[in-house]
Amino acid sequence: MSTAFRPDSFLDLCRAAIGPQHVLTTADDLAPYLTDWRRRYTGEALAVLRPGSAEEVATVVHACHAHRVAMVPQGGNTGLCGGATPAAAGERPVVVISLQRLKRVRQVDPLNNTITVEAGVVLQHLQEVAREHGRLFPLSLAAEGSCTIGGNLGTNAGGTAVLRYGNTRELCLGLEVVTPSGELWDGLRGLRKDNTGYDLRDLFIGAEGTLGIITAAVMKLYPLPRARVTALAAVDSPRAALALLAIAQAHAGAMLTGFELMSALCMTLVTRHFPQLRYPFVQPYPQLVLLELSDSESEDHARQIFETMMQAALEAGVVQDAAVAESVQQSRDFWNLREHIPLAQVEEGKNIKHDIAVPISRIADFIEATDALLQQAFPGARMVTFGHLGDGNLHYNVSPPAGTDHDAFLANQAAVNQIVHDSVHAHRGSISAEHGLGQLKREENQRYKSEVELAMMRAIKQALDPLGLMNPGKVL
Amino acid sequence: MSTAFRPDSFLDLCRAAIGPQHVLTTADDLAPYLTDWRRRYTGEALAVLRPGSAEEVATVVHACHAHRVAMVPQGGNTGLCGGATPAAAGERPVVVISLQRLKRVRQVDPLNNTITVEAGVVLQHLQEVAREHGRLFPLSLAAEGSCTIGGNLGTNAGGTAVLRYGNTRELCLGLEVVTPSGELWDGLRGLRKDNTGYDLRDLFIGAEGTLGIITAAVMKLYPLPRARVTALAAVDSPRAALALLAIAQAHAGAMLTGFELMSALCMTLVTRHFPQLRYPFVQPYPQLVLLELSDSESEDHARQIFETMMQAALEAGVVQDAAVAESVQQSRDFWNLREHIPLAQVEEGKNIKHDIAVPISRIADFIEATDALLQQAFPGARMVTFGHLGDGNLHYNVSPPAGTDHDAFLANQAAVNQIVHDSVHAHRGSISAEHGLGQLKREENQRYKSEVELAMMRAIKQALDPLGLMNPGKVL
Repeated sequence: MSTAFRPDSFLDLCRAAIGPQHVLTTADDLAPYLTDWRRRYTGEALAVLRPGSAEEVATVVHACHAHRVAMVPQGGNTGLCGGATPAAAGERPVVVISLQRLKRVRQVDPLNNTITVEAGVVLQHLQEVAREHGRLFPLSLAAEGSCTIGGNLGTNAGGTAVLRYGNTRELCLGLEVVTPSGELWDGLRGLRKDNTGYDLRDLFIGAEGTLGIITAAVMKLYPLPRARVTALAAVDSPRAALALLAIAQAHAGAMLTGFELMSALCMTLVTRHFPQLRYPFVQPYPQLVLLELSDSESEDHARQIFETMMQAALEAGVVQDAAVAESVQQSRDFWNLREHIPLAQVEEGKNIKHDIAVPISRIADFIEATDALLQQAFPGARMVTFGHLGDGNLHYNVSPPAGTDHDAFLANQAAVNQIVHDSVHAHRGSISAEHGLGQLKREENQRYKSEVELAMMRAIKQALDPLGLMNPGKVL
Repeated sequence: MSTAFRPDSFLDLCRAAIGPQHVLTTADDLAPYLTDWRRRYTGEALAVLRPGSAEEVATVVHACHAHRVAMVPQGGNTGLCGGATPAAAGERPVVVISLQRLKRVRQVDPLNNTITVEAGVVLQHLQEVAREHGRLFPLSLAAEGSCTIGGNLGTNAGGTAVLRYGNTRELCLGLEVVTPSGELWDGLRGLRKDNTGYDLRDLFIGAEGTLGIITAAVMKLYPLPRARVTALAAVDSPRAALALLAIAQAHAGAMLTGFELMSALCMTLVTRHFPQLRYPFVQPYPQLVLLELSDSESEDHARQIFETMMQAALEAGVVQDAAVAESVQQSRDFWNLREHIPLAQVEEGKNIKHDIAVPISRIADFIEATDALLQQAFPGARMVTFGHLGDGNLHYNVSPPAGTDHDAFLANQAAVNQIVHDSVHAHRGSISAEHGLGQLKREENQRYKSEVELAMMRAIKQALDPLGLMNPGKVL
């Protein structure tokens, strides 16, 4: 378009399409949409558009396309990599398109084990609606009270149930998407099998809004398990934890729905900062594993599986000690230990976080090798290593040496990241297991991806968004 | 390229790259590669190239690209839709690239539950190698003795274990692909979580070789179940079978690994043509369901789950009769009834086959509505309906009225297809659940896909294969 951009006529189009009250333009109104929740990024935008339906999304995207306005799709704004925050000002005017008003549950189909929801439905609400219909929606993560399913899909969120149920990608059967030129694609299929062309669904999932805007999705549901029981096992190394994983999978098969590793330092921090939480063993151990079974029979049956499994692990010398939760409350207490690790880290002070994955069989090698490299470069650095061992996904966090200045240590962030990510790459892992790239890891990612892969990604971006209007400065 | 194509110099390049004995050019040598195994399609090709490694594939693809030669990738040549057979002669010379010599198992990683295999590995061999390592590779289908994993990936094959383990797509973690210009992409990741860019893996899976050539893959393995037990349940309608499915899922959760529907006519044909197979009930029933449980504990435990489940189903009036297999042999016998249905159909004569899927909750509606439409158009047509009910996938086959001429009836194929596929579309289903499009359903598919979806598919094809060299005349 050679004519100059006229903001007023563009905004009038938007106001006519979705109502003036849903076109935000004052600095105060814009502010909450322009900063990510970790307050790492703040961007600029001409306006925030809050369409109320997929059709309204299509209309405003069409207007953006006609006026060459760049678009940043946003859900609950809980992302950890700045993917939903406008990037540094570019050549084009930018709007944030908030999907929060698209919050209808369009259909629940218990027999098909599916639920059709709009992008702005909050994850916890989706879980609750499923439960009201006697079904489980298994996706679960820390931000579930405010993140939206559209954001979960855009970033292919992981969480605590991936071991059994997969990432958000594996939980989605169909999508509705507004393309960068403002066309509405109805791909809302509720099918377990469909081989009629290219897999567009999985291309939009995890693309972080750079190829189009997800407006609705058909998600999978599962039968509600009758019981969930957890256990804690004490082991002497990550390698022993891996041996326990193999034993647990052989005994429990698909019933095994959680397998989380926590180092001794994690437990030290948790019990230091949250003394009300009870550590269930009489002595400290180098590593704890939290296991969860979901059982379609009964709590007793799950406990019996745990007893047999732990007996086998003790006899094999894999496990030093074990405790099976005797009640729902005790299961809750065990999970509390795990979930308070990030909170204890906050209390302890600043640290350098990594969200990495390696093949499960290489986790122990990765931890040993990377710990050693970090100790060499930063003697005394404290490793707060925990995470979803059953998925090969570690939150591999580096805290300053005890008693040293935190801000001084954080100045080493780039060097620490490079040691960790180079080691991840050497172990054929991923530098972003479940949080995506956004702005945070966009450049870092280019260091590790092959040129042939980057070229294919750019070709797809160019094919679906030739004007480069969708979420510029993210992913690629 | 404006210069004329010179076959000899092209073939000399290929001979130098992979050895002259692996460049087939005589009519006799070519013949087996130019006809699909149902003998529905026969194509033409300048040569069949049989590279022996991914690097050799890249070299010959590079030569094809330089000489503008079209390529048809081929695995075990067991596809049902002509996807691996050259289509009608186009403007360009065509070669078949057979992946059968890429048969190395590159790595088995039991702790990571993965196996890395080359495209030409036969599915049954992959299953066997997994079992030798105490692991299950769950993909299983009729052609497993000769189909290859590369073909399974290219067509996103389904089979009998989808209910629990998903299609081939869900079993794959990473790919190695030769791009249409002959570059080798190493995407062989063995990760459960990786959010570092567009999902290229799932774009190549199910693309039937139209976007590039899969040369190797990292596939998921599972713990071997301790026991597999089957049961047969007699129900009076597809609707009752759906009610049984809900009961079975509530009682067995992820242990439920098979749920197959078989109509009374299926059983009549099987017992007529294979009288040695034993029908386990004393009277005929309108529908039978075959259920399979995979148990990580024991056979006894699986039988006990079955007893509780069937008791609940009998009390709810959902099931008329039920038989739980008492031995491995009896489990085998039950599966034999199911597996002999296609063979009994062959004995009975010709029929018109459909491989369709609808949302599971709509299966009963679909069968009732479509049966009625077909009876109206073709009175007396016999419906041989069976399939993977738990996946919403039916083999909805139409046999001629008893005693009528089969060939005369088959002249109605286009009209029958249109009634069935229009009804599938009206029920928001898929006209190709697990067999792909190939040549057979390419045009039919365009009738049902939206223009916006077809435009995105074409844009992706154009982006990754701008010269249109990969498997022309298939999918799009």
